[in-house]
Amino acid sequence: MINIGIIGYGYWGPNLVRNLVENPNANVAAISDLNENRLAHVTARYPNIEVTTNCQELLDNPGIDAIAIATPVSTHFKLACGALKHGKHVFVEKPMTATSAQAEQLIEEAEKRNLVLMVDHTFIYTGAVRKIKELIDKNELGEVYYYDSVRVNLGLFQKDVNVIWDLAVHDLSILDHILVRKPVAVSATGISHISGEPENVAYLTLFFDDSTIGHIHVNWLAPVKIRQTLIGGSQKMIVYDDLEPSEKIKIYDKGVTVSNTEDVYKMLIDYRTGDMYAPQLDMTEALTLELQHFIDCVDDSKIPTSNGPSGLRIVRILEAACRSLDKRGEPTEV
Amino acid sequence: MINIGIIGYGYWGPNLVRNLVENPNANVAAISDLNENRLAHVTARYPNIEVTTNCQELLDNPGIDAIAIATPVSTHFKLACGALKHGKHVFVEKPMTATSAQAEQLIEEAEKRNLVLMVDHTFIYTGAVRKIKELIDKNELGEVYYYDSVRVNLGLFQKDVNVIWDLAVHDLSILDHILVRKPVAVSATGISHISGEPENVAYLTLFFDDSTIGHIHVNWLAPVKIRQTLIGGSQKMIVYDDLEPSEKIKIYDKGVTVSNTEDVYKMLIDYRTGDMYAPQLDMTEALTLELQHFIDCVDDSKIPTSNGPSGLRIVRILEAACRSLDKRGEPTEV
Amino acid sequence: MINIGIIGYGYWGPNLVRNLVENPNANVAAISDLNENRLAHVTARYPNIEVTTNCQELLDNPGIDAIAIATPVSTHFKLACGALKHGKHVFVEKPMTATSAQAEQLIEEAEKRNLVLMVDHTFIYTGAVRKIKELIDKNELGEVYYYDSVRVNLGLFQKDVNVIWDLAVHDLSILDHILVRKPVAVSATGISHISGEPENVAYLTLFFDDSTIGHIHVNWLAPVKIRQTLIGGSQKMIVYDDLEPSEKIKIYDKGVTVSNTEDVYKMLIDYRTGDMYAPQLDMTEALTLELQHFIDCVDDSKIPTSNGPSGLRIVRILEAACRSLDKRGEPTEV
Amino acid sequence: MINIGIIGYGYWGPNLVRNLVENPNANVAAISDLNENRLAHVTARYPNIEVTTNCQELLDNPGIDAIAIATPVSTHFKLACGALKHGKHVFVEKPMTATSAQAEQLIEEAEKRNLVLMVDHTFIYTGAVRKIKELIDKNELGEVYYYDSVRVNLGLFQKDVNVIWDLAVHDLSILDHILVRKPVAVSATGISHISGEPENVAYLTLFFDDSTIGHIHVNWLAPVKIRQTLIGGSQKMIVYDDLEPSEKIKIYDKGVTVSNTEDVYKMLIDYRTGDMYAPQLDMTEALTLELQHFIDCVDDSKIPTSNGPSGLRIVRILEAACRSLDKRGEPTEV
Repeated sequence: MINIGIIGYGYWGPNLVRNLVENPNANVAAISDLNENRLAHVTARYPNIEVTTNCQELLDNPGIDAIAIATPVSTHFKLACGALKHGKHVFVEKPMTATSAQAEQLIEEAEKRNLVLMVDHTFIYTGAVRKIKELIDKNELGEVYYYDSVRVNLGLFQKDVNVIWDLAVHDLSILDHILVRKPVAVSATGISHISGEPENVAYLTLFFDDSTIGHIHVNWLAPVKIRQTLIGGSQKMIVYDDLEPSEKIKIYDKGVTVSNTEDVYKMLIDYRTGDMYAPQLDMTEALTLELQHFIDCVDDSKIPTSNGPSGLRIVRILEAACRSLDKRGEPTEV
Repeated sequence: MINIGIIGYGYWGPNLVRNLVENPNANVAAISDLNENRLAHVTARYPNIEVTTNCQELLDNPGIDAIAIATPVSTHFKLACGALKHGKHVFVEKPMTATSAQAEQLIEEAEKRNLVLMVDHTFIYTGAVRKIKELIDKNELGEVYYYDSVRVNLGLFQKDVNVIWDLAVHDLSILDHILVRKPVAVSATGISHISGEPENVAYLTLFFDDSTIGHIHVNWLAPVKIRQTLIGGSQKMIVYDDLEPSEKIKIYDKGVTVSNTEDVYKMLIDYRTGDMYAPQLDMTEALTLELQHFIDCVDDSKIPTSNGPSGLRIVRILEAACRSLDKRGEPTEV
Repeated sequence: MINIGIIGYGYWGPNLVRNLVENPNANVAAISDLNENRLAHVTARYPNIEVTTNCQELLDNPGIDAIAIATPVSTHFKLACGALKHGKHVFVEKPMTATSAQAEQLIEEAEKRNLVLMVDHTFIYTGAVRKIKELIDKNELGEVYYYDSVRVNLGLFQKDVNVIWDLAVHDLSILDHILVRKPVAVSATGISHISGEPENVAYLTLFFDDSTIGHIHVNWLAPVKIRQTLIGGSQKMIVYDDLEPSEKIKIYDKGVTVSNTEDVYKMLIDYRTGDMYAPQLDMTEALTLELQHFIDCVDDSKIPTSNGPSGLRIVRILEAACRSLDKRGEPTEV
Repeated sequence: MINIGIIGYGYWGPNLVRNLVENPNANVAAISDLNENRLAHVTARYPNIEVTTNCQELLDNPGIDAIAIATPVSTHFKLACGALKHGKHVFVEKPMTATSAQAEQLIEEAEKRNLVLMVDHTFIYTGAVRKIKELIDKNELGEVYYYDSVRVNLGLFQKDVNVIWDLAVHDLSILDHILVRKPVAVSATGISHISGEPENVAYLTLFFDDSTIGHIHVNWLAPVKIRQTLIGGSQKMIVYDDLEPSEKIKIYDKGVTVSNTEDVYKMLIDYRTGDMYAPQLDMTEALTLELQHFIDCVDDSKIPTSNGPSGLRIVRILEAACRSLDKRGEPTEV
């Protein structure tokens, strides 16, 4: 049994609490939020959980083993650092921190104290992304040619971060998880349509040191919700539509076959179109699995899948993307 | 009655012939193609049309008023220039030419001789695009925020041009038609997955001198066919899905409303979600209307909608996009 | 504030409890279920609610004003009758009772004591069905020609009732709500594919005393989930797809126009195809509105929309349908 | 080389002609139609084909080996009978004849003279239906539980036949082809919404001598076009959507597993949900294959797949369905 304190009960915090309350290996010891109304919601639903507007109480509480942080990005570093310094394991929302320097420091703090530092990259714990990773690991796709994702809807405008930090972070965490190679440079474009607000539409191209290419389209101002990813390989190709109730992943036995003829100037391209299949996916809520994984890592001193270094890699790409966006797509090394 | 000669009976030529044969105001006088097999197809279907492997015969034929050119891009300039110099009106496939210098020269030749020079930007004659233009002209969308298009499928690899010249040209012609403002710069990325072949996947961001942004995703190696365009405006937003058998255009009364409060540091964003409607569209084949428009322009000495200068503007963007692509997205002025 | 006791905490009971707990005008006084495990779930989530395996305690409790019954159909009558006789208002799951005789008796009991008797026809409280009713009431569809519904999926086989009693009841309640005219006869067919079990697939045709026709297809053994209703009218037609996340209702300005010519043997039919629109719908959870409506009816001694007589009308159709099904579709009066 | 004469150049005739003209084993010798305008269309497109308003000329022409009949149903018998009596093989549109007595007589005439008599049940030659038959023949579905088809759209009202004869005939021909067992009885309901016109909406339930059940929903007055068939089996289930551009057939590894326990009163039903796959289908135009099959049967004196007896079986079901419809679904033996 691990005792957990939760800082932040806004949009995502309630999901953490609901999952932890139902997890027999966890105990939600206390919840803090600056907003008393939010705490009243906690008390109405979970009368036995302690609440406070002062998060420091959670850090000072010797009965708490771990802290889950679900607050705005700008506060992640300070809260996580404080928790680590008080000897608590940390589970922090994505993106891990507001800067890569902060991320590096958190990693160091956690290592120094042998504490678990885990970033909430929820998507990599979904049945869909686990299946995609499995297919790529088994080399079913062949060489991965491209990863193309569209993640758009009429979304809440954020005040403190732009649409890249809010939405592209999901795809970056998926990419980091499923591909061995990591992006070396990024070209990003985008714009804000509301004066004085962060960019609400953006496009990222990710370059690798081979012929893989990544592209992410994020938009807070779209008329329809789209969550569609195309993954092209030399052998097979995947369409991953997260809005499909079932059949989220469709695998196409399609592609081109290149035959080199003796004549070096000639190359024959044949088109291949075979069956499609949609594998049955584990539909367990990703957050349930993810939080159990966090608990396991704490119990067994293991390194989580979405660990500090993966969080750092993603923050570095976010930083590079924003620098590139400011220069209208100028390619920027990660 | 206008007498037309057609050069090129490959993929698109048969569509031109079919439409012209059924048009009571046109007469297909002759067809040329380098491939005798293709000409045998002509004769089987249209025994009364003259055929030849020598296109010069069409240019030299004084009974021919106009030449339609449906050959590879690299040959457009030479053929169109020859036709104009022989006093023939010209209808040429998109993209107009392989370079902007060639396009400029064609425009000059046509103007000098008072001949019609029309580029086959077929999409702008579809019921869907005409409806979109009508909505934008009537200011139903409000300020146009973005144009985002995905045009991907397992497509035929071209030998002479990359996927931008093959597919993005459609969106560039639509954009040129529906927006008064023209792109001032482009950032393009992309890659070839088959060694020695042109790029088969590419992404273009188009910058304007206001806060409009354009983006085009083209791919010859996609597992599924997608033809979806999102157009966001301050008042309304459009989803244009060209693969829908009906309801190709859906108009969403959705968006954000920004209210400036007295406090200059505060801006309130409200979300608006209203009805959607799909207007009934004219389903006449675009090419039928377009060829009639060409005939009308010849008959009445009018300037076609998809005229030489529009063809030139698009070639200029294609050139800039390829320069940008070579530099991994470096922003490039048009 | 009304004090409510809930009998049955199986599949649907938790939804009743969740909604009532969040309703400021209601107090969930006690919950009974025969299964102690189910009661343990209640206590874990709502430690302050009294639980019991003996539903009689709820009936005997003078502090309880109303009873909500969410148990198998075969028990509805006995429980509801008991509640009414103890002076409690009743909210009972659909179908109201297992026989029309039982339904008649409940109506009488409730009337005699001036108690509210309400049947949980949830669908008629959805934004979608309310919009359909509004459109029909305003005569936007013209004469209603047909109501055709498909409600199929790989569903839980019921032991005590067949697929008609389980699923068709939803459509019958919608039909009863939106149409003034009521079915006069039914022809039903269907079959059981698992020996000894109730019918798992069935088809109902409903006849009216005009040219309206109704048809309902229900199936527990379908590979995909479908919830699609077509409603045809002389002026407009509706497609209602309950699985669409938004745009559940699409209204088509389509139909035929009949012109009588002088020649009595000639009738000209013209086809009309206009715009489609999808009105914005109220997305409030139907059960939330419905339970508030129940509370209002109790407070103000009003007759609920889904009252006893509507429950009775539907049970009568269910009975007639089963008689017809046994005779392979023989038309059976309601 | 077989010489074919075609009677009827209305809606379907042009498809026959186009396919036969492109078939190297066939020669279209002559076409007749009562309407001179239609014949003018023939001449414009195929200047070498003889045309006439008098179909008798085709029957009398000794150079013609076979007659294809694409005229209204009411004329099928007379024309086909005449052709057979003149020693011509016959390819006749569906439904084969207006009555089963006529169908029986045609079969007899053809047998007596050793002539090929083939009915144009186009759908059974599609890649989709051939794949379904292959799956059923290999017993991949297990026991076939049901065939459920929806075939609706805003369709042309026919003057001489109702929607059953016009549309349900497609499903009846598919059913006849894929299932060994044949329907023994039918219950049909339906209605006409336009006074004096044939029924425009209808529902057919087909009974077999086992627990298979068939259902067909046809409608000329639907707001959207639907062509969706569900086929349920004890092992697997199929969704066949003919409007899907690719992936017309999806095979679901879903179902229920019944385990008989020792206790005869108990039966355990488990639900099984596995992968889905969409096999690659042969996309050759069905009519092309079908007409080649007709030519092969003529050349080799073989019995066609869609032969006279299959045409007769379907006409018998159509007749029974209409009798049942007149009696509001009363079950009627075939």
